[in-house]
Amino acid sequence: MIAFDADDTLWHNERLYTAAQSTLKQLLAHYHPPEWVEQRLYATEMRNLAHFGYGIKSFALSMIETAVELTEGRISGGDIQQIIDTAKGMLAAEVVLLDHVQDALEAIAPQHTLMVITKGDLYDQEQKIARSGLGRFFAHIEIVSEKRPETYAAILRRYDIAPERFLMVGNALRSDILPVLAVGGHAAYVPYAQTWAHEAGERPEGNPSFHELAHIGLLPALLAAL
Amino acid sequence: MIAFDADDTLWHNERLYTAAQSTLKQLLAHYHPPEWVEQRLYATEMRNLAHFGYGIKSFALSMIETAVELTEGRISGGDIQQIIDTAKGMLAAEVVLLDHVQDALEAIAPQHTLMVITKGDLYDQEQKIARSGLGRFFAHIEIVSEKRPETYAAILRRYDIAPERFLMVGNALRSDILPVLAVGGHAAYVPYAQTWAHEAGERPEGNPSFHELAHIGLLPALLAAL
Repeated sequence: MIAFDADDTLWHNERLYTAAQSTLKQLLAHYHPPEWVEQRLYATEMRNLAHFGYGIKSFALSMIETAVELTEGRISGGDIQQIIDTAKGMLAAEVVLLDHVQDALEAIAPQHTLMVITKGDLYDQEQKIARSGLGRFFAHIEIVSEKRPETYAAILRRYDIAPERFLMVGNALRSDILPVLAVGGHAAYVPYAQTWAHEAGERPEGNPSFHELAHIGLLPALLAAL
Repeated sequence: MIAFDADDTLWHNERLYTAAQSTLKQLLAHYHPPEWVEQRLYATEMRNLAHFGYGIKSFALSMIETAVELTEGRISGGDIQQIIDTAKGMLAAEVVLLDHVQDALEAIAPQHTLMVITKGDLYDQEQKIARSGLGRFFAHIEIVSEKRPETYAAILRRYDIAPERFLMVGNALRSDILPVLAVGGHAAYVPYAQTWAHEAGERPEGNPSFHELAHIGLLPALLAAL
């Protein structure tokens, strides 16, 4: 069984957030320098994670809250609406596959059962999988609220898979790699150009179940060598 | 297999939305009569469903958008923050079980496999199930983005259950009852005092798989009679 993270592993995602942040920085340019807006937004997101969880709607609410806070309530209704419209634009954005994804999935699908394990908003993630055109490759789709070792352990139990027969492919050390290694699975780390600070982590150097790929096109070769 | 809807079937929920609406009506009382605020909010929610899906975060974004629209952008930052704080209050609200729920589950759990099938926000619903103290009764929890006949058909396939061995218990004709009957299952409708207009539907009178209970405490007797 090979499982894939979705955002920034199968398709571009973080750049939508980066673009939305730029919009917010422009809206608040009269009040604060962009670095400060970014820092306060990140602090708001971290504080709100326990209320809102992950995803674009949570991000939108944190952007609005940051705008209110950083303007001491002077933000205009029109600017608030622009933030909401930015979020709607993110939700409706075209799903742009990463290079090599289509070829890699086609190469390995005949020999392996594939699944998606992704975090975030249920509705948004389902829409993206549908719009990506990749749905046919995946036997199972698991949308989860957090990616902890227990999350992966529960999925392995649910599908009755031994950890040593499980490989997770993803771009976030914190969510896709370290918790999978913790439960005895294999993990292939495919770094993405931009990764959210919250998802950073240390490479588990020396762990024989840890693999790093420069891009997902190298996955078939890794599988052949395992 | 007996499946339960969660919001307004196992615990009170709609009244949180009603209370939040009252807050919005008060905030906008200088601009519009309460009936108009309610009507515009519902229209905004319906329009945003395709973008945002269900749940409190979606509701919060629709409340903010309605407030901006109905004040022609003159809503203050402080009032926007109050709407966000109202949403956080909803997300953190105590889970108050409906009468008879605990007893009914205890009575039927020894003889039946129980599950939850609930719609809405993944993170929020998981938190509520955990806080409800009812988690131990349920072998499976399915959080779905829509409750269509295909949704139930997929769940029946996934757990390998014949439709005639499946009973869904819920308060929404549109989501819990009609689509289950459409795939050949049994459905027990337990009306709730307040049901969101969007979830209304017609009682499928005369369908022998349709049952109506005045309250969930009558479920064990229904099961004994089936």
